[in-house]
Order: sequence, then structure tokens, then C-alpha cells
Amino acid sequence: MSHAQAAESGEDRLIARYFQPLAKHPGAFALADDAAVIEPPAGCEIVLKTDGIIGGVHFFPEDPADTVAKKALRVNLSDLAAKGAAPLGFLLTLALPQGIGEAWLADFARGLADDADLFKCPLFGGDTDRTPGPITISIAAFGAVPKGKMLRRAGARPGDRLIVTGTIGDAALGLMLRNDAGAAHRWGLNEEQRDALVQRYLVPQPRTAVADLFRNNASAGMDVSDGLVGDLAKLCRASGVSATIELSRIPLSQAARVALAGESGLIEPILTGGDDYEILASVPPNGIDALRDQASASGVAVTEIGTVTPGDAAPRVLDREGRALAFAHASFSHF
Amino acid sequence: MSHAQAAESGEDRLIARYFQPLAKHPGAFALADDAAVIEPPAGCEIVLKTDGIIGGVHFFPEDPADTVAKKALRVNLSDLAAKGAAPLGFLLTLALPQGIGEAWLADFARGLADDADLFKCPLFGGDTDRTPGPITISIAAFGAVPKGKMLRRAGARPGDRLIVTGTIGDAALGLMLRNDAGAAHRWGLNEEQRDALVQRYLVPQPRTAVADLFRNNASAGMDVSDGLVGDLAKLCRASGVSATIELSRIPLSQAARVALAGESGLIEPILTGGDDYEILASVPPNGIDALRDQASASGVAVTEIGTVTPGDAAPRVLDREGRALAFAHASFSHF
Repeated sequence: MSHAQAAESGEDRLIARYFQPLAKHPGAFALADDAAVIEPPAGCEIVLKTDGIIGGVHFFPEDPADTVAKKALRVNLSDLAAKGAAPLGFLLTLALPQGIGEAWLADFARGLADDADLFKCPLFGGDTDRTPGPITISIAAFGAVPKGKMLRRAGARPGDRLIVTGTIGDAALGLMLRNDAGAAHRWGLNEEQRDALVQRYLVPQPRTAVADLFRNNASAGMDVSDGLVGDLAKLCRASGVSATIELSRIPLSQAARVALAGESGLIEPILTGGDDYEILASVPPNGIDALRDQASASGVAVTEIGTVTPGDAAPRVLDREGRALAFAHASFSHF
Repeated sequence: MSHAQAAESGEDRLIARYFQPLAKHPGAFALADDAAVIEPPAGCEIVLKTDGIIGGVHFFPEDPADTVAKKALRVNLSDLAAKGAAPLGFLLTLALPQGIGEAWLADFARGLADDADLFKCPLFGGDTDRTPGPITISIAAFGAVPKGKMLRRAGARPGDRLIVTGTIGDAALGLMLRNDAGAAHRWGLNEEQRDALVQRYLVPQPRTAVADLFRNNASAGMDVSDGLVGDLAKLCRASGVSATIELSRIPLSQAARVALAGESGLIEPILTGGDDYEILASVPPNGIDALRDQASASGVAVTEIGTVTPGDAAPRVLDREGRALAFAHASFSHF
């Protein structure tokens, strides 16, 4: 016992070295206590979200550790943004296989630190364990919204316009490219286009910059993580409405357009594959121009893709001839 | 697409069936949105804690699903209690192997629902995934403390008395009994004693009932999860003090006393094995009687085990002859 005090555990040492620098909020007590404290800003409440990612399920075990960290945080930040919330901080639980050493952890913490700074979302605490399974990362993220103003799934009204940020389908194609070495050639993609799609799967771009704008102007919103078509169905179900969107209006990246021209069947993974982490929202018609202009000023493209309609029928995706598309699976589900 | 709205995903169906009943707080939106909202009670801030448990690491894969759920929540509630916080709610991330079916999930949700009610700690949201690894459960728990009043690790002063709730070492012995079928006989335990120890490993008892009492009377506190000796060293390190505790004062259950009489070497796992989930606290001498009486009225035994001393030497555990015990490992560490 005489040296117990000097002999901090390996766990404590790793936390102090790699994670303490991310704990910049005074309520995190520099990770030197068992818990942290947080308070919402005046007039606000705290938005709570948790999402996990698992090696071999949500990312490739060989992905760079810094991008794994960014993805783990960003999938949560994407939800906060779509709910109109500004990031306040996060908790991390990390389960690592024996084979994962300190070099991986150093890269992971570096990626996480970069994003914690970028999104003003400091670490409040965590838990680190060894697992006989794959790398498993769970994050609980906290955001702030004015009291009672979280942007809900419910709230879309017939006549509202449906809008999405950014482009749809890139990450789903990126995942296919990772799994199929010949796909890029078959789809007619050059290297830059392939890389752009793969990158979108690797590191999502949460739309934090326009969270306020959507909260103030949209009638309902959510992030597109399980595929546009299925997520739109969820938004409509929660709002008690239906919707029609036009295929020709759905914003595609240049790389996705090239791939789709090369293989028309890709429209299904583009619209149902998920991992987009864009915002889908309904906006009253008179607010849409202002929202689009202000989003554009924040560097985020916003595209009108359709209209909310009455009834409880499933949303329809119409092609140029006005025919409804049919999909085998509207969205991704683990069960 | 025409039936997409009727065709909720399997994930949505499982959540609605098993977890929605736990989401009794209005801010959880009945789990029908992407996130939840929470506010601290007036004059309070929110205490944040996350802890995960993994099948084959923190519990046995064959443990009943309802006790697994209780353990997952209670290890977090134990931290909240030791910080002086009242539970407000929690987020859950659940990664399940393919082999885990709906019967397991039903039992898991039932155990979790019982504890959510018992500890007034409703579910605010979650995330459920399939994993190629073991059952992995991560919980982020939220509690309330009056602003600035979270019971810290730092704060123990020379002369303060050291106290613990309940009994120490039972869960560590329970784990040994699970791993070694012959141990109960060798240690001279009857079936009831064996079961009592095993039960303490299976389902911890968070000291929520005395959280307020400790916050109002203790100078420092933390829960004993990695072993009494190691956790005391952490408390001392954070407070910049040392400590002396007396072996003969450490509260042992009757079963642990029998086992220790049968095998004296068990003192090491008892004091360093962890999984106790009792509160260790330092209390100024003039507050200790009141705290002990009021805790006792709440049904929680509190025992004085030693004294905080000046200096930064490692805490000492003295036997009846006043000699300091030596341990191979002061506490459990995953790294």
C-alpha cells in the first residue's frame, strides 16, 4: 500500500493524458471527479440525445481513429442541429478490444478534440472499458434550446414545403464504394468523385450552423440518418400528414449524379440508404425564401423537394412523369 | 412505397412496445421524437454521469436480463447518490448480439421499468443496435443538486472521519463464488450466505435514500466501485490529504465474515475487489452522529472506518496490532 497514491491506475493515466484536454467546461471538473454538472443557459432547456457506433456495423474497423471519433460525435450533433439545439457538451463511453493500443487512442482523442473545439461541444465525462467485442462508442450529447422550442417531428401541416440541407445519398454510395472495389469504375466515377462519396460516409457534416434558423422557421424537423424516404415517413407519421416529393428536385452531389447516370438503380440506395446526416424539415410557404437565403449565407444549401399533403397515406416520391416510385425497404433498421 | 407508413421498422416497434412505457417524463415525448428535453428543478443544476456494462466483463452473459438491466442503471444511480444528487432520468444505448431475441428484451425492459419507477428515474431516450460482440449497455444518468453543491471528491480535511454505507466486499466475494463452484464449501458458507454474496454482485443497491444527507453533511464523497482501498486513495489524492482506516472497523456482512474466517486471504478481494456501490465519504467530526442517526432512520447503515490525516502519503489500512496492510493491487483497472 505504501505507493498506492503514486500509482494511479492505467485507466486514470489514459484519461488524464488523452481526454482531460477535451474537458474545458468548468462543470467537467477536469474529469477529476466522478460526475459533472451542467446548467442550461437562461431561458433554455437541455436537449438530450444518445447514439452509438460499432466497429464493423457503423464504421470499418480499419477506419482512421480520428474519423471514427468525429463520426461518433457528429451523428449526435446532427440530431441536435435538426432539433434546433446548440451543442453544450457530451459524455463518452468507450469499449475497446485488447488489440487497440495507445496510438489508436491518441488519434481518437485528437479527432474528438478537434470536433469538440469546432462545434463548441466539450467533454463532460466518460467511461472506458475493455471488451471482447468490436470497438463500441456511445455518446450522449447535450444541447440548448429556448424553453419549449425544440424543433419536433410532429408539427408539419398540409401546404408546408419540404426542404433538405446539403445533398442526399452520398454516404450510402460511399459505403457501397467501400464494399465493392469495382463499383467506382462501373459507375464512371473519377478518383476525386469516389473519394468525395467515401468521405461523406466516413465523416458526416452536422448542420449546426443552421440549427437556430430551422428552429425559428420550420414547423417540423429531423435529421436524415436512416434514409430520406423512411425518415420522411417518420416525420409524416408523427405529424399526422402525408407528403409528395419530386425526384428531380432531390439535391444530389455531382459525384452522385455521375454514379446515377452510370447505374440508374442507385436511386434506391440514394433515397433509402441513410447516413446522410442532413436536416429534413417542413416549412410554411411564406418562410421558405428567408430560410433559404439565410442558410445560404451560413454556407448551407437548402433545397425544396416537395410538399406536405393531408391524409395518412405513405409519402410518395414522384418521377418526372408523375409516377410514384416503389422501394423494397424505405429505410434502414437494425431489427 | 404505398405501405411505408404502415410498415414501421422492427426497431420502432420494439421501442414502442418495450421502452415507451418507461418514458413517463413529458420531456421524453414518449420516445416519438429524435431527442428529449430536460430542465433542472429551480435552484438546481444537472449532474451528469455515464457508465457502461459489457457481457462477459461486468456481468455473466447468462445472467437474467432483468438483473442485467438493473445493474446497468444502478451503477450510474450509485454515482449520482454519492454525489448527493436525486435521479432525474437516463439515456440508454443498447448493442445486442444477433442471438438475443425478444424474450430477453422483454425481461430487460421489465427490470429497467421496475427500477425506473423505484428510483423515480424515467427513460429519456435511447439507441438500439445489433453488434457482432457481446451485450453492451451504456447508460447516461442525470441527477439534480442545488447549484454548486455536488458532493466532490475533493474536500476532505485532516481530522474528518471516514465513513462508508452498508457492507464492503460482498460483491467481490460474490463474483469469486460465481467463478469457482467449490469456493462456497471451502469458505464454510451455507447456501443462504452464498446466495447473499452472489446477489450483491448481480444487483447493486444504490444509496439514493441518503444522497441528500451526505450532500448536506459530508466534506467529500464518492461511490466505492473499484475497491475501497483504491477508491479511498482517489478521494485522498483529489483532496490533497492522506488517511488511516482500521481493518476491524470495516463493515462486513455476516456472509463475508464467515468467508473471511474460513480463508483469511479474502481480505484482499474484500478491500480491493470493487463492485461495492456503497458511498465512501469524509465527514467533519461534529456532523457524524447526526448523519449516522438520520441514515439509520432511512434504513442505511453508516460506519466510521477511520480518519483523514495530513500529507500526501497513500492511505493506510491498519490491522488490530496497528500494522499497515500491503496489497498487490489497490483497485481494479481495465487498463
